[in-house]
Amino acid sequence: MKRVTNSPALGIVYLIGAGPGDPELLTLKAVRALQSADVVLLDELVDRRVLQFASHARLIKVGKRGGCRSTPQAFIERLLVRLARQGQVVARLKGGDPFVFGRGGEETLALARAGVPFEVIPGITAGIAVPATLGIPVTHREMARGVTFVTGHTRNGDEPNWKALTESGTTLVIYMGMQRAGAISHALLAAGMPADTPAAAIAHGTRPGQREVVTSLAALAGEIAQADLDSPALIVIGKVVGFAGEQLHACRSAA
Amino acid sequence: MKRVTNSPALGIVYLIGAGPGDPELLTLKAVRALQSADVVLLDELVDRRVLQFASHARLIKVGKRGGCRSTPQAFIERLLVRLARQGQVVARLKGGDPFVFGRGGEETLALARAGVPFEVIPGITAGIAVPATLGIPVTHREMARGVTFVTGHTRNGDEPNWKALTESGTTLVIYMGMQRAGAISHALLAAGMPADTPAAAIAHGTRPGQREVVTSLAALAGEIAQADLDSPALIVIGKVVGFAGEQLHACRSAA
Repeated sequence: MKRVTNSPALGIVYLIGAGPGDPELLTLKAVRALQSADVVLLDELVDRRVLQFASHARLIKVGKRGGCRSTPQAFIERLLVRLARQGQVVARLKGGDPFVFGRGGEETLALARAGVPFEVIPGITAGIAVPATLGIPVTHREMARGVTFVTGHTRNGDEPNWKALTESGTTLVIYMGMQRAGAISHALLAAGMPADTPAAAIAHGTRPGQREVVTSLAALAGEIAQADLDSPALIVIGKVVGFAGEQLHACRSAA
Repeated sequence: MKRVTNSPALGIVYLIGAGPGDPELLTLKAVRALQSADVVLLDELVDRRVLQFASHARLIKVGKRGGCRSTPQAFIERLLVRLARQGQVVARLKGGDPFVFGRGGEETLALARAGVPFEVIPGITAGIAVPATLGIPVTHREMARGVTFVTGHTRNGDEPNWKALTESGTTLVIYMGMQRAGAISHALLAAGMPADTPAAAIAHGTRPGQREVVTSLAALAGEIAQADLDSPALIVIGKVVGFAGEQLHACRSAA
C-alpha cells in the first residue's frame, strides 16, 4: 500500500519487512528504501546485518520483546509522524513482514490519520521461510489443508481456539510461543490432535545461530526445555513436519 | 533448505519464490540465483518481468493453471533432475513462495531422492503482500486471531473444513478460489460466519492490472462476477478487510 501526497514539506515512512534474519532475504524494494532512508527505526528482533543497506542513516532502536519492557507503541507512532513531518525519509524496519504480527496495522492507521505518506514493503515471514530451512513445505497438499499462523500469547491472555485449529486440518505455525509451549501442546492434545503429530521448534531461523528440535507434539515442550532453545523462535505442528526427516534421510541415502 | 554435495558433475536446482508479481518484491537471494542460472523453468503464473535478472538463461515454460491442461508434475521433476545431472544451474521459478501451494515439497522430495543438490529460496507470498496493497494487515490483533491460507479447490474435490475455519477466528485468505467464490461464501455463511463480514477479492495483485472488489461475505460472489475479475486472484475474508476502507477514508479526510 502506498500513500503519496504532493506536500513538499512531508517526508515519507516506509514500513519495511526485514524478513526472518538472513539479509539476503530482503526484497529489492526494501533495500532501495533503506538506501534512501535518513533515519531507521529498528525493532529488537530485526537482524542487525540488514543495516548494511542503510549505512548513512541515523539509527533509533525501539525495542520490543514479548514479556519485557519496551518502547510504548503510541510513542513509536508519534515519532514516525514527527520525523516524516520534518521532511525525513523514515525506514521503519520490522522483523518478518510488517503485517504479520508486526503491529503494522496500528502504525499505518496512525500515519494515515496524521496525513503522513507511507508505503508498506512486504517481507519474507518467518512462518514460511524458517520451516523451509528444514525442508518443511507448510502447505504440502498430501498432508495439510493449508497453513495457519497464530501467536502463542494474546493481548488479554485469552487463547486461540485450539480445538477449531485442530479440526481445520491446517499446519499450525505458532509465533512467539516458546514460553507457552507446554500449555499449547496440552491444549492441542486436549482438542484431539494425535500425540504423535510431528512438531518442531526452530530458534533463530535463517541466522547463524539457528537451532531446532524435530519431534512429536507430545514430546515438544520437553525437547524445547532440554535443548534450551530461546527466542526468537517458531513452533510448527502438523504432518508436514515429518517432511524434514524424510528429505534428510533421502539425501543421506543418496549421498 | 540447502543440500550441497561435492560431486563436480552435478549442477544445482534453485527453487525460487518469484513473489506475487512486482519484480521489486524478489529477494536479493532470488536475484543472485537467477543471475547465475543456465536455465529457467517457469510457471504460468510467474510475472514475466522477473526474467530481466536471468537474461542469459535458457527459458523453459512449464505452465500450470487451475482447470487447464498443464505440464505433468512428474515430467517437471524428471526435467529438473536431468538438467542438474548435466551440470546446469537450474532456476525453478514459482509464483509467490515455493512452499505455499507451489508443490515445492514434491519437487524437493524428487530432487533429494535423486541425490541432486538444491536450495529453496523463499518468496513473498501473495496471501500477505496482496492484501497489504489495500492496507489490510491480515493478522491485526484487534480483529483477528491470526491468518489461515487455504486453496479454493482441493485435489479430490473435497472441501476445507469451513466450519472449523470460521470458528478459528483467523482471517481467511483463499488462493485460487475465484471460480468457486459462490460455493465458498455459501459454505462460510452456513458455518455461521456473519453475512456482513468484510471480504475482498483481488486480481493480479501487485501487478499493473491489479483490480479488486471490497465488499461483504454475502455480496462477494456477486461483486466478483459483476467486476468480471479473473485469475490469478486472492480472496480475503475477515474483519481486517474493513481496514482498507478505514485507511482510505482517513487518507482522504487528511488530504
